[in-house]
Amino acid sequence: MVLDRLQQLAHHVNATTPPPHPFDPLSTSEIDAAVALIRKEHGSLNFNAVTLYEPRKAQMMAWLKDPENAPRPARAADVVAIAPGGKIYDGVVDLDQRKIVEWKHTPNVQPLITMEDLQEVEHIALYCDPWTIGYDERFGTGVRLQQALMYYRPHVDDSQYTYPLDFCPIYNAETKQIIHIDVPSVRRPLNKAPPNNYLPASIEKEGGFRTDIKPIHITQPEGVSFQVKDRIIDWQNWNIHVGFNYREGIVLNNITFNDKGNVRPIFYRLSLAEMVVPYGNPEHPHQRKHAFDLGEYGGGYMTNSLSLGCDCKGAIHYMDAAFVNGAGASTIIKNAICIHEEDAGILFKHTDFRDESMVVTRGRKLIISHIFTAANYEYCVYWIFHQDGTVQLEIKLTGILNTYSLNPGEDTKGWGTEVYPGVNAHNHQHLFCLRVDPNIDGPDNTVFQVDAVRGPGEVGSAENQYGNAFYAKKTKYTTPVESMSDYDGFTTRTWDMANTNKLNPYSKKPVSYKLVSRDVPPLLPKENSLVWKRAGFARHAIHVTKYSDDEIHPAGRHVPQTSGEPSHGLPAWIEAAGSNCSIDNTDVVLWHTFGLTHFPAPEDYPIMPAEPMTLLLRPRNFFTRNPVLDVPPSFSRSPSQVAAGANNCACKKNDGSSVLV
Amino acid sequence: MVLDRLQQLAHHVNATTPPPHPFDPLSTSEIDAAVALIRKEHGSLNFNAVTLYEPRKAQMMAWLKDPENAPRPARAADVVAIAPGGKIYDGVVDLDQRKIVEWKHTPNVQPLITMEDLQEVEHIALYCDPWTIGYDERFGTGVRLQQALMYYRPHVDDSQYTYPLDFCPIYNAETKQIIHIDVPSVRRPLNKAPPNNYLPASIEKEGGFRTDIKPIHITQPEGVSFQVKDRIIDWQNWNIHVGFNYREGIVLNNITFNDKGNVRPIFYRLSLAEMVVPYGNPEHPHQRKHAFDLGEYGGGYMTNSLSLGCDCKGAIHYMDAAFVNGAGASTIIKNAICIHEEDAGILFKHTDFRDESMVVTRGRKLIISHIFTAANYEYCVYWIFHQDGTVQLEIKLTGILNTYSLNPGEDTKGWGTEVYPGVNAHNHQHLFCLRVDPNIDGPDNTVFQVDAVRGPGEVGSAENQYGNAFYAKKTKYTTPVESMSDYDGFTTRTWDMANTNKLNPYSKKPVSYKLVSRDVPPLLPKENSLVWKRAGFARHAIHVTKYSDDEIHPAGRHVPQTSGEPSHGLPAWIEAAGSNCSIDNTDVVLWHTFGLTHFPAPEDYPIMPAEPMTLLLRPRNFFTRNPVLDVPPSFSRSPSQVAAGANNCACKKNDGSSVLV
Repeated sequence: MVLDRLQQLAHHVNATTPPPHPFDPLSTSEIDAAVALIRKEHGSLNFNAVTLYEPRKAQMMAWLKDPENAPRPARAADVVAIAPGGKIYDGVVDLDQRKIVEWKHTPNVQPLITMEDLQEVEHIALYCDPWTIGYDERFGTGVRLQQALMYYRPHVDDSQYTYPLDFCPIYNAETKQIIHIDVPSVRRPLNKAPPNNYLPASIEKEGGFRTDIKPIHITQPEGVSFQVKDRIIDWQNWNIHVGFNYREGIVLNNITFNDKGNVRPIFYRLSLAEMVVPYGNPEHPHQRKHAFDLGEYGGGYMTNSLSLGCDCKGAIHYMDAAFVNGAGASTIIKNAICIHEEDAGILFKHTDFRDESMVVTRGRKLIISHIFTAANYEYCVYWIFHQDGTVQLEIKLTGILNTYSLNPGEDTKGWGTEVYPGVNAHNHQHLFCLRVDPNIDGPDNTVFQVDAVRGPGEVGSAENQYGNAFYAKKTKYTTPVESMSDYDGFTTRTWDMANTNKLNPYSKKPVSYKLVSRDVPPLLPKENSLVWKRAGFARHAIHVTKYSDDEIHPAGRHVPQTSGEPSHGLPAWIEAAGSNCSIDNTDVVLWHTFGLTHFPAPEDYPIMPAEPMTLLLRPRNFFTRNPVLDVPPSFSRSPSQVAAGANNCACKKNDGSSVLV
Repeated sequence: MVLDRLQQLAHHVNATTPPPHPFDPLSTSEIDAAVALIRKEHGSLNFNAVTLYEPRKAQMMAWLKDPENAPRPARAADVVAIAPGGKIYDGVVDLDQRKIVEWKHTPNVQPLITMEDLQEVEHIALYCDPWTIGYDERFGTGVRLQQALMYYRPHVDDSQYTYPLDFCPIYNAETKQIIHIDVPSVRRPLNKAPPNNYLPASIEKEGGFRTDIKPIHITQPEGVSFQVKDRIIDWQNWNIHVGFNYREGIVLNNITFNDKGNVRPIFYRLSLAEMVVPYGNPEHPHQRKHAFDLGEYGGGYMTNSLSLGCDCKGAIHYMDAAFVNGAGASTIIKNAICIHEEDAGILFKHTDFRDESMVVTRGRKLIISHIFTAANYEYCVYWIFHQDGTVQLEIKLTGILNTYSLNPGEDTKGWGTEVYPGVNAHNHQHLFCLRVDPNIDGPDNTVFQVDAVRGPGEVGSAENQYGNAFYAKKTKYTTPVESMSDYDGFTTRTWDMANTNKLNPYSKKPVSYKLVSRDVPPLLPKENSLVWKRAGFARHAIHVTKYSDDEIHPAGRHVPQTSGEPSHGLPAWIEAAGSNCSIDNTDVVLWHTFGLTHFPAPEDYPIMPAEPMTLLLRPRNFFTRNPVLDVPPSFSRSPSQVAAGANNCACKKNDGSSVLV
């Protein structure tokens, strides 16, 4: 141990740059170092992932509390590699000690399909969207497969989604061969409709672009209001470490709020941990279309390099993302993460009608975002921090519908919509899994279900004479099994993550953060269906588990080609934890599945106007008072100022940039 | 008739300004003219409202279709006045013919309480929030009453809401006398806690304002992208008449969308027609706290005069609002309506992974807003138009919680929260009623309930082998009674307003607009409770009625002091229409009740950070294609451009205002 520590210190002393923060993603040199160590010992491999092996929480919490004296968590790499012949290896490399600490063959799994894997298929079968096969019982898990959703392009600049082909080759990624082609019993010849394109050359031909949009300039002449030190952002009392990995994309760690000098922990870790997009057409082989875009492809791997003034406007801070490629070299996506501020409209306002005293204060928000392209589709992920302590997750869905061929006059049978002649866009859901590791004034937290319900007593009774009684019914989840629960629109159900050891001094209620989420459809594939078995996390809107360092991926570590028998991830963990596992006043993780059901329409085609959805994490009984009272008002006047006739005194009205039309 | 027409024409010829648009609110001169005509005939009155008597729809539709030849609807005033002795009169004045066409005494009603009425009480009992009495069975409807929620201010600049008093005087507006004082059995002496203030002088004393927010400037150096002609706005294919009245505030009429040269009607009229705020504390006399802020006070009357750069940023177009005062003089609220544009982030984006062709286009929105102060509370109402045909209604709730006194150590019994020592903020709901008069490619429309449901066939069956089938189940509402329906979170229920006479040429589905609303709690006061009886519109999320010119106010024309026996407004109209009334393929109105349930917390005090809620009206199967493809992209490159190595050709990247940090 002493030797370890010395070695570690020596490493730090020798380094020309300060050591990375333990939450930082691996740098390119760390990726290269990990690959070199593995190659030396295990020879030629195809690298599927080399990512931060996140510090164990117990050690990390100790270090966060006392970075000067507590041992600094080691830097380590979490590695997935495929050996010739298709054997899958999972490993951990200690980068401080420069040694492989774990290396094991994992049978009967398939790690995610990388962009390079997808490109391989593309080279063999022109114009296809290679998808993971999902699961096909004819081929099982042993062979690494992709299904190729086929399209045709009349011209290189035409959108191929107007020309879906009716057959579906199955591709073996190991042998690089087509091993099977699914051909439907009803054949659908190539669509004869003219192209339906969205790129500028086509728009120009159809009459050109509109010319009546005047520019809006958003500028911050004095700079931004946030500070970034390495990967830690400091903004309006918030402090956030911004991580990133190949699967989840943005990971936010150690989120705290400076409450009048008292730095209070709120979340240890926030991420979008998984998602599934089941399609609703029961005809074979469309059941295979239920992409786990994070677990099967990687939201990080598919992340866009962003462009200034296009994806985000204003004063932008970018962060890059580093990955490994199949050959083991480190690669960089430039501008993977966008960090910027936006005006947030009115933060609060009140006018006292009796004396015309008033205050109006404008808000500001900080947005940490990335965008990833999953084959045909785009997900724009915005983590939004508000000054009042609210964290908002907004996701905008855009890109192109997955399409399939339809014969002239053919009935979609309600499973899809003909969005253009010959183009059938199938019904689908986008179900996301938000992983919240709460740290509400400390790690020992409890989750309550909160339902708005009517009070007891019938109309006319002594206790409820006028029938107007209602209250917030709180139900504590004491075990993971108990916590498996659904949304209830009738009670406008919310969930409180509370620290029951600390009561708000005024309300005497536990300090808490409330999850307010309203786009919460159930998983529509039926119980015991293929998707239900594979996407266990999506069976309920809420699961709560006791914290475990290794439970990050709610559909399992390796998602492609899992049969769902048994179900990986959340259902397995909850079963293993057993009915005696307590989640009352301990370190817990809340998993929330939300999203939307999409019945396509022609206005979604040939490219879909962004459809937004959102959820909030709101402080409730956390502060003793509105925490934004000290945000300078845009305009204010007190009763005595009004009485003195000094209407505009002490008021910073317009900042000068707004004008009358 | 010929004489009428001549008279009308003469009036128009004589006028120095062109005649107002028939949808325009009454001008000050029209208000003055109406009052003069009434005074001449009926002597001294207290004027409660003089507002536009809206043109009858049949006549208006004919005129809109052919303004050159169809008779122009007459300008008329809708008048409510109170005669000495408290007799209520409803009248209509034809302003073109300069005569009173209707004047009738309306017994057993009370018109809304105006700001002047409220000020009257304030002068008598210092520091109170005068509310309508709601309904109190001890006093009934005959006498015009207010309840005075009492507060104390230690100092003129202190917020009185920290010092609620426990008694409640009842005020007779006619005699200007206190006729009764409700005193609770449990007395609660004046709060001894120090003030909890939000105005700058207090914040300065507590340490001052934060200094780390750098300005964000939003400028439109080339001007705005909309044109305003009188009260008609033209923007990004939208055309909208912006009206305003004393009750609903903003009224949007004759909303059309120019679909490639074809001007298509979408909505004849949109407004927030009513609201109710029931409080959940069953103890007497808190059951009386269930304000109908629109029907009992008037969202227009309570509208704020807005300040440039405070309430809205950027290039702003304001509209004023004209009303009558009690004495019969016309008055103006300057800058009552704010009209401005905002950047709307990414409108659509797609990258083709195989060739790196891409497009990213930013969106724009147009916002028509007003803010009104209802005693302690503020409602910020934003009608947002998107380029893609979506209309969004966003409401931000801010202002100050209604508070009541609490003894030290007293239990709130779950009916409220102690947000500050001695300050009990009661549970409440904000339930709004959106009135939609659809005109989806014409007035004959049909409303469908749309539920996302699982397909038939068990897992393993031939029709649903993998169990993944799901579809949009559509249920037509054929009668108003059938249409009385609730939100279903499990099916993520939406509602389509469709024109079944016109099918989308591609999808073969009727052209429609979909209501997507997710904040839809039920009315929590019980069936047959006082609030349930009075706020009939809030019993269901949806009611659909056959259009009638006189059905505008879903809780009735005169709301104060209605007992709910019988219920006015929606329930009465639906009962009167009978079970044979067809709403299938005819001129219909959709009424949607939505909102939220608020369990207060200390962070809402002493002034509440704005809490937003939103709903969408989205075109579905209305267009044949994404209608925003011709919005100029921020960045694009086609496959052939990428192949030619010309990455940035034909692309307007950054507009120059965005910068790297």
